[in-house]
Amino acid sequence: MDTEYKIVCLAGGVGGAKLAEGLARIVPPEQLSIIVNTGDDFQHAGLYISPDLDTVMYTLGGVANTETGWGRAGETWNMLETLSTVNGPAWFKLGDKDLATHLTRTYIMSVGGTLSQVTRHFRAAFKFKPALIPMSDDPVPTNIETKKGDILPFQEWFVRKSWKPVVKNVLLPEDGRLSPTAAQALQNADIVLIAPSNPFVSIDPILNMYPARAMVEDLPRAVVAVSPIIGGEAVKGPLGKMMADWGMEVSATAVANHYGDLIDGFVYDSSDEMPFTADMPAHATNTLMQSSENRVSVAQEVLEFAISLIKR
Amino acid sequence: MDTEYKIVCLAGGVGGAKLAEGLARIVPPEQLSIIVNTGDDFQHAGLYISPDLDTVMYTLGGVANTETGWGRAGETWNMLETLSTVNGPAWFKLGDKDLATHLTRTYIMSVGGTLSQVTRHFRAAFKFKPALIPMSDDPVPTNIETKKGDILPFQEWFVRKSWKPVVKNVLLPEDGRLSPTAAQALQNADIVLIAPSNPFVSIDPILNMYPARAMVEDLPRAVVAVSPIIGGEAVKGPLGKMMADWGMEVSATAVANHYGDLIDGFVYDSSDEMPFTADMPAHATNTLMQSSENRVSVAQEVLEFAISLIKR
Repeated sequence: MDTEYKIVCLAGGVGGAKLAEGLARIVPPEQLSIIVNTGDDFQHAGLYISPDLDTVMYTLGGVANTETGWGRAGETWNMLETLSTVNGPAWFKLGDKDLATHLTRTYIMSVGGTLSQVTRHFRAAFKFKPALIPMSDDPVPTNIETKKGDILPFQEWFVRKSWKPVVKNVLLPEDGRLSPTAAQALQNADIVLIAPSNPFVSIDPILNMYPARAMVEDLPRAVVAVSPIIGGEAVKGPLGKMMADWGMEVSATAVANHYGDLIDGFVYDSSDEMPFTADMPAHATNTLMQSSENRVSVAQEVLEFAISLIKR
Repeated sequence: MDTEYKIVCLAGGVGGAKLAEGLARIVPPEQLSIIVNTGDDFQHAGLYISPDLDTVMYTLGGVANTETGWGRAGETWNMLETLSTVNGPAWFKLGDKDLATHLTRTYIMSVGGTLSQVTRHFRAAFKFKPALIPMSDDPVPTNIETKKGDILPFQEWFVRKSWKPVVKNVLLPEDGRLSPTAAQALQNADIVLIAPSNPFVSIDPILNMYPARAMVEDLPRAVVAVSPIIGGEAVKGPLGKMMADWGMEVSATAVANHYGDLIDGFVYDSSDEMPFTADMPAHATNTLMQSSENRVSVAQEVLEFAISLIKR
């Protein structure tokens, strides 16, 4: 696509990876930055694990397992099977190939590298071109406060407890800061696209990194969010359950209202109702990005819609 | 074997594992403790790795790779192959099954467990019975000072540089202490057997743990070392090269002299010369422990020789 605009995509895991892949196929790489949630990152048995960065990275690198939505294609599980036989911590599913990523990341960080440097290392290794940027270079863990009163690290809630405990609050760090590369990307952004990721546990953690929210509000010429709700249901993961548990309507409208003034436009699925009665521009399309072609066409439509907002 | 004596075996990796396996087959498990060198331990890409403990543990658990002398039988290498493709730290050969050990150890230590607790966990998981004991619960790294003046962590020298740099000094920590379980085992020992491991980088690091040397000198009723030299050559590893580089004779005699007054008797290979002209009791046998039967017969002879020293 012929565009002179600099694009920043804010992304969580699966939904973020899909839009990022579509954008990567149509936007010149030097004009595309993907800022990824790292609130889910955690240390597991000594290894530093970045679930959302890995999902986006594997997708852009063409090695993602498209069936599970996480991990690598053609994965083997010899370590994990052995881990069970020695009564090790087997609740987090680490594939043999995936482990190579975690060992490499942990190694680079153990010799003083930042998460941004790790991600640049992997951009070369996995041979993709757009800038993939962690939202922060610091530990900025998202914690889940359950209705029972427990405070669980995100992966403990999401994977170990299969997101069953009812969420009372999503606890975001009070003093988290954008990575310098993320801040620079936002500084230069003409268009910010918010991927169809979970607003509460994927996008809000990014916006919570100082000074991301203010930058997104003030700087870009257009901010467009894509609905993670299709046909009144979350495409994947705990979003629908969270909204229902909180007494919210599980709808594209509720997501658009959550972003509110931050966004200049909203892309929703044709199967849903027009989310706005007021003057927020909105665009309907088929947002389920199952095939590579869908990802390109959705990215194209989202971008054209954003550009139309600039040119109005 | 019918013995009332409490036996402690001081062991490094391969040679230690062989004698330990032989002893485990003939000594009642409650009377056998194996204290293992942990000076080679290191952190690699976030994982806590204990090479000698693993070699002895895999051997006692019946899952060792007997061809390489390290690692597990039936190993697969999917992580390591992938690690090379992402330009990760691939110099240390981590098999997929072996990784399960390192993740489990690192997990237990990350939640505050000691190396002794880790080792007890694995004793249950790998279903062996004698007490396997790390020489220390603290980091007590052995470093290698090379003739060129570099100071290298042991595994950097041993694995990464294939023990090629000429060794000037083996640097042992000044303030290392025995683990409480190791001290207790020595306190109760009737017989201490020094396995046919490298005296300088496997056994001396154990004796260097305060107060191991004094305990071995004062407490047991017999201390017997088994020669790691057979036919004037080291069976495996850098021992022969080290002795030659230092201008020592590569001989059983030189090893016996190195232990000196610490030992009450010495077992050497029939292919070597009688190591002592003076009054140190010595016993010759075929000390190459290739088969399981050999390991049992050598263990039996070593133990009978030690008992004969008590009864003199």
